[in-house]
Amino acid sequence: MQSEDDRHDEVVHFLKVVHAFRQYEAYAISANTRRRRDFFKIPPEDGALLEKVGWKSRLDKVDDLIHENAKVLNQLVANPTIFMDENELAVAEKELNGPSHGHSNNHHHDHGNRSNHRHSTSHSHSHNAPGRYQASSSDMEKVRSTLKQFVRDWSAEGRAERDACYKPMIDALLRRFPDEENRPQRRVLIPGAGLARLGWEIAYLGFESRCNEFSHFMLLPSYYVLNEIKSLNQHTIYPFIHSFSNATDSESLLRGIRFPDVLPSSLPPGSNFSMVAGDFEDIFAPKSDPEEDETGQWDAVLTCFFIDTAKNIVNYLRTIHRILAPGGVWVNCGPLLWHFENSDEVSIEVSLEEVKSLATEIGFVISDETTIETSYVGDDRSMLGYVYRAAFWTATKVEG
Amino acid sequence: MQSEDDRHDEVVHFLKVVHAFRQYEAYAISANTRRRRDFFKIPPEDGALLEKVGWKSRLDKVDDLIHENAKVLNQLVANPTIFMDENELAVAEKELNGPSHGHSNNHHHDHGNRSNHRHSTSHSHSHNAPGRYQASSSDMEKVRSTLKQFVRDWSAEGRAERDACYKPMIDALLRRFPDEENRPQRRVLIPGAGLARLGWEIAYLGFESRCNEFSHFMLLPSYYVLNEIKSLNQHTIYPFIHSFSNATDSESLLRGIRFPDVLPSSLPPGSNFSMVAGDFEDIFAPKSDPEEDETGQWDAVLTCFFIDTAKNIVNYLRTIHRILAPGGVWVNCGPLLWHFENSDEVSIEVSLEEVKSLATEIGFVISDETTIETSYVGDDRSMLGYVYRAAFWTATKVEG
Repeated sequence: MQSEDDRHDEVVHFLKVVHAFRQYEAYAISANTRRRRDFFKIPPEDGALLEKVGWKSRLDKVDDLIHENAKVLNQLVANPTIFMDENELAVAEKELNGPSHGHSNNHHHDHGNRSNHRHSTSHSHSHNAPGRYQASSSDMEKVRSTLKQFVRDWSAEGRAERDACYKPMIDALLRRFPDEENRPQRRVLIPGAGLARLGWEIAYLGFESRCNEFSHFMLLPSYYVLNEIKSLNQHTIYPFIHSFSNATDSESLLRGIRFPDVLPSSLPPGSNFSMVAGDFEDIFAPKSDPEEDETGQWDAVLTCFFIDTAKNIVNYLRTIHRILAPGGVWVNCGPLLWHFENSDEVSIEVSLEEVKSLATEIGFVISDETTIETSYVGDDRSMLGYVYRAAFWTATKVEG
Repeated sequence: MQSEDDRHDEVVHFLKVVHAFRQYEAYAISANTRRRRDFFKIPPEDGALLEKVGWKSRLDKVDDLIHENAKVLNQLVANPTIFMDENELAVAEKELNGPSHGHSNNHHHDHGNRSNHRHSTSHSHSHNAPGRYQASSSDMEKVRSTLKQFVRDWSAEGRAERDACYKPMIDALLRRFPDEENRPQRRVLIPGAGLARLGWEIAYLGFESRCNEFSHFMLLPSYYVLNEIKSLNQHTIYPFIHSFSNATDSESLLRGIRFPDVLPSSLPPGSNFSMVAGDFEDIFAPKSDPEEDETGQWDAVLTCFFIDTAKNIVNYLRTIHRILAPGGVWVNCGPLLWHFENSDEVSIEVSLEEVKSLATEIGFVISDETTIETSYVGDDRSMLGYVYRAAFWTATKVEG
């Protein structure tokens, strides 16, 4: 049971995320306006050249596209009462806008933020009245990252990334459970599910598929995409307009990405697909009530760019092992970008070799190891690419 | 002429860099000690497993290697009076340790900091007595980056990166000036020279080679490597021990890199090689004294990972154009990671297409364009690689 204090903290945290989405437009416009101010600080003859080569007119186009992005982002948070009680939200709202709250910079469990640019200084933004809650710059970065997650999980342009990771993971699952008729009895868990495309594909194949996700920055858009989308390519977003660095040309910066490339509501009748919100270690901890305990309940656990979100990787591995049924399979694909390495939280950063040794100690037999080169929410037209040499394996629970 | 205030500010800034190098050891040990503290916060049975797989003993090895790195870094700043007047340094020292100075986080012209990890939260470090100057976390990051610059410019392991960029730049220079006998009369400028390997290679070939560098984080180590090194592979450094993320194994994290791979003092007799410290736009601005004015004085300007350090790229391009002799050549290789994009400074971020249009407008004819895929101070054994699709071209001054 959640305590009242914990519950209140969660509502406040949720509301901060809602505000971050809603503040996207003003924040992004402010960052673009900074460019206009800088334009007037350079010699007029230099400015004239910038106008001639089209730089100046791009700023207006970027403003327009920020408005387009905001239309989509505002829909994700149009109805917060779907997720939280109205009265609780009102209490949290009052607290957020109280005198003691300002720019916060908490480090949160964050799965959607991998290929950040090294520039991380915050923009000044004075569009909010004093006393109003202002989202932190790291939260605003997560909002921008959400746009790129739509590309990865739900656009035609994201297909290369999905084929690199999701496809071999699904293939491993199908190799282990080849019998199509029994799929509805096979329970598959996807922790760190992000925008839930991998989980959706697994449900589409007929397995019982349950996604787990902690971050409201992922939960709000995944709810929207899975429940509110009405048609193919319903939306166009512009995920690459926020940084002008490493752009080959304007067209690359300004290009729109349509989503979704498949209709999320097109799951076959009788599909078993669910999402559970919350912390992986809490939800899947041993429970005294046998009805709630997940020990031995899962045939497969699929972790994609997930295990490095651990503060204590040993507990992640023990949890995955414990909730698997005997002979159950753990399929992993991802790097080891330990999310809490430079935070105030506990962080145990082990090497790949050590992860595998720990898994073996805990009772897994690892097979089918390989390395997968892939980007993650990357922009394939940028002059700077991030290449993960992701570790892939299938591991079987043999003890415990 | 520099004003007295400017001079004082420069000495203070220089001294901050010296302190950053000197604080490396305590800072890095403190970051590693954080891992030991975290170890005691997890369940003992999890800790026992970490000990079994070798994680715990790695911490002690990392401490040892931090001491080894510190030995090298301390040598770079052993004699600050080589660079600055003793009395000026004493005044600056007093000011730095005064009551009004603490943790500063100024954004400086920074060429050596490209492939930073996205984690940028600062470590707490309480090893300094209160009132003593503490280097900022961004300055400490630059110190760690210096170690990687030694790898790039002066180790056998850096050869792949040098071959990717320096080699085609040198080839372009040799194609333009094929006559070996006339090389001593050919004046080549390398702005943003970093640890000066490219400039050294050009001097080695017989050209007059002048490096220009702004950052004291580069100037101190380049002075050391060019003037103090006595033997091949004199030093071994451990540049990969500071982050445990994306490590395949302990051996990769702990591996040592020897430098230098060539003896910097082995330039042929009569070589003409120099380094000028300071801001490119200041040093090469038009001067009223014709003795000081650099207009039309250079046969070639070579910019490698440099042009994106501009606040106003138009002025960089105009400067390069103006200092070239008619028919002079500008060879460029690099991305467009605009260094000031998210700073409080002016920043004009143009696309690659726009850079080339601006150069054409200013009076260059661009030829031999290509894209070079390369890392920059990369770790080829990491599970995360940064790949720059660097723009390469040769441009000829045709007007002005």
